[in-house]
Amino acid sequence: MGFKLTKEFLDEVSVAVTSNDVQWLETHVFELHDADIAIIVDELEATEAKSLYDLLDEERQADILAELDNEAQDELIKSLSSEEIASQLENMDSDDAADLIADLPQEQIEEVISHIKDDEAADDIVDLLNYEEDTAGGLMQKEFIKAKIDWPVNRCVVELRRQAEEVEKVFTIYVVDDDDRLVGFLSLKRLLFASPKTLIKDLYQNKNMISVKTSDDDEHVARIMEKYDLVSVPVVDLNNKLVGRITIDDVVDVIMEEAEKDMQLASGISEKIESSSSVWRISRARLPWLIIGMLGGILGAQVISGFEGGISEVPALAFFIPLITAMGGNVGVQSSAIVVQSLAKGDDQFGSILKKISKEALVAVVNGILLSLIVYGFAYIFDSSTLGWVVGISLFTVIMFAAVFGTLIPLLLDRYKIDPALATGPFITTLNDVLGLFIYLTIGVLFYGL
Amino acid sequence: MGFKLTKEFLDEVSVAVTSNDVQWLETHVFELHDADIAIIVDELEATEAKSLYDLLDEERQADILAELDNEAQDELIKSLSSEEIASQLENMDSDDAADLIADLPQEQIEEVISHIKDDEAADDIVDLLNYEEDTAGGLMQKEFIKAKIDWPVNRCVVELRRQAEEVEKVFTIYVVDDDDRLVGFLSLKRLLFASPKTLIKDLYQNKNMISVKTSDDDEHVARIMEKYDLVSVPVVDLNNKLVGRITIDDVVDVIMEEAEKDMQLASGISEKIESSSSVWRISRARLPWLIIGMLGGILGAQVISGFEGGISEVPALAFFIPLITAMGGNVGVQSSAIVVQSLAKGDDQFGSILKKISKEALVAVVNGILLSLIVYGFAYIFDSSTLGWVVGISLFTVIMFAAVFGTLIPLLLDRYKIDPALATGPFITTLNDVLGLFIYLTIGVLFYGL
Repeated sequence: MGFKLTKEFLDEVSVAVTSNDVQWLETHVFELHDADIAIIVDELEATEAKSLYDLLDEERQADILAELDNEAQDELIKSLSSEEIASQLENMDSDDAADLIADLPQEQIEEVISHIKDDEAADDIVDLLNYEEDTAGGLMQKEFIKAKIDWPVNRCVVELRRQAEEVEKVFTIYVVDDDDRLVGFLSLKRLLFASPKTLIKDLYQNKNMISVKTSDDDEHVARIMEKYDLVSVPVVDLNNKLVGRITIDDVVDVIMEEAEKDMQLASGISEKIESSSSVWRISRARLPWLIIGMLGGILGAQVISGFEGGISEVPALAFFIPLITAMGGNVGVQSSAIVVQSLAKGDDQFGSILKKISKEALVAVVNGILLSLIVYGFAYIFDSSTLGWVVGISLFTVIMFAAVFGTLIPLLLDRYKIDPALATGPFITTLNDVLGLFIYLTIGVLFYGL
Repeated sequence: MGFKLTKEFLDEVSVAVTSNDVQWLETHVFELHDADIAIIVDELEATEAKSLYDLLDEERQADILAELDNEAQDELIKSLSSEEIASQLENMDSDDAADLIADLPQEQIEEVISHIKDDEAADDIVDLLNYEEDTAGGLMQKEFIKAKIDWPVNRCVVELRRQAEEVEKVFTIYVVDDDDRLVGFLSLKRLLFASPKTLIKDLYQNKNMISVKTSDDDEHVARIMEKYDLVSVPVVDLNNKLVGRITIDDVVDVIMEEAEKDMQLASGISEKIESSSSVWRISRARLPWLIIGMLGGILGAQVISGFEGGISEVPALAFFIPLITAMGGNVGVQSSAIVVQSLAKGDDQFGSILKKISKEALVAVVNGILLSLIVYGFAYIFDSSTLGWVVGISLFTVIMFAAVFGTLIPLLLDRYKIDPALATGPFITTLNDVLGLFIYLTIGVLFYGL
């Protein structure tokens, strides 16, 4: 099950588009799901993409335009007039419409909106453009079904039929009072099985009504929907007036992007990039961390040069430099990853920092003793008992420091509202490298009496 | 919006449970959402958790039991008799019920099932126990609404009413033929607005019907639901017979767990652990990678010891050892992270390995030249032009190798069906460390003519 785009198929599409073979396209492409056609358009050259797009009927054009990746979207938008964009927007959900034009120059946005014939749709889009991208307001759509609390069921069904035409997916009916304040909800199932004269008042549920505020962070919305297993969540303003709803598909995207961002940060990539981004963008996204890593390395060189005399007398000291720095880095990353994850899940409920650190320290003691014993053995065989003591004790100390810093730094970053995921990247590794070197060489000099 | 458990509140609950203060619990705890009560039960001591649980009515007990984390679930299950477990299962969705007892000893599973009074429910659970946990079969539930293709709408509504009692959330009605084969779907909205005599045949949609097979991987299911923006997806067996459905809330959990697992693997943590796991479990989960890292360090020591003569003559060579190893590690992790992510998203569509590697190599050339120039300057100031050349050329070479290996290894792992996320962890760092040392010291010896 599921369409999978191959290089061969893409070539065939490309040929069919160039030769304007509408019949082939109709049987092989237009039969596909919108999401699959969007993937094809993503991959085609800009001019071919435009030609294929022009062959679709208007409603599908809008659906596919909304599904494209940013790059392909920008290309297509550029080739459309403001009128054309406006008529596409009218066929889209309000949230997709607002996202589509949000990055255009202010002037063009105004022009596009002036061409939208449906005033209500235009108002919705203008309203949505006000919210920050990463808030509930930025995620929500204006299409939802609401019913007044004093309606009877049959009135509700009539209104529903009217409203439902523009609401693609109905999951829950939101119940509001006369001032449009959210008071509860009603499942479609419940409505379906109720007798026509029953009042919504006697049918709706208001216990544990979950809603989010327009200003709530998108990750907060994701956590709420995940925790309460919601398919959609109503969005209210500061006066508890119902202003929109967020559906789970948009939140799944938030969750995936968030996971991707954390992973990239942890890998030392500073801006969102994809396999398909240009070489220059990829280079730029990676350089900041590489430069930090390099400065760490240069600092490390400085530390070692301070012990130059010792190393030239006992060159064996240099043997274990990579082991010490690598282990400091590894332990630091492990500790920070756990803290970052528990922060991301929002379970800082019992966030006594001291408790977390002492636990990490305990783990470090267990692993540190074990690993130090092993490395003592190796260094002993390798060189001498003295080197064994130096490496063993240093490794234990470095592991302890790395564990404590690895725990502390993300907690501190979080406290100062900086994304703690930063800490899992080269930052913590670099810090532990330099610190580890200093500890190791100092202990070495002391033991060898240099 | 949203309940947040505090240490203080938990203490109050604990006191109320111990003193059997039902009135306080009713106003402060039982009013909460099931998901929130589950979090409280998770955090209480086992005996208190049991006491609180016993005060709930049976239906809520089942809902909350299904929401508990594994540890609390196991504790509670242990304190219940097989009859009690059976009666809880009857109040649960079939997928939650199967998950709950899946880890019990085979004997007890049989005993529990023999106590389930509802034969159909028992059959459903037995059926679900057959599937692997991480497949569509393991995720699906047996509660869904189906309609025969030749029914009229009013028959469908009657049947729906009958079936819907046990289906908590209805999103889509699945349409089947006489042999129970999935032929299409029907939205509740469409049914609601149809006239009673219309036949399902004339109402249902069969174009681009998305379904998954019982044996499909759970990550595949997640990708499908994300791509096609689905709230639920029907599950069919090899004969295309409809056997279950998967709802988005379960898939959100899969996505989150997957992201967590990848992040932990990348951080060198080999089994799923949480902040709350025991010190021993945490230690055990981290040791494998630390030992690999240490073996890498010992191999590194071996490499350096091969150059002992050179280092004792030019100790300055040792200065830049940490820089070389750190940069090799960082570049390798960056390259592998991008590959792992694009593999996880399933976009290996144009997976010409050569193309990916040449792109990474290009990025490496750009960053390598830049960083090597900087480090040349530092090494020159630090020591000498010779050291500058040695470090600069080595760094460039190491970056090139690291980028190529970082790209190649996850691709190879993926080809041999091993989780490519393994490659982003200490594995690639360790490999690049050893390789980098060898390159650096060899170039050093050549330049200094040692």
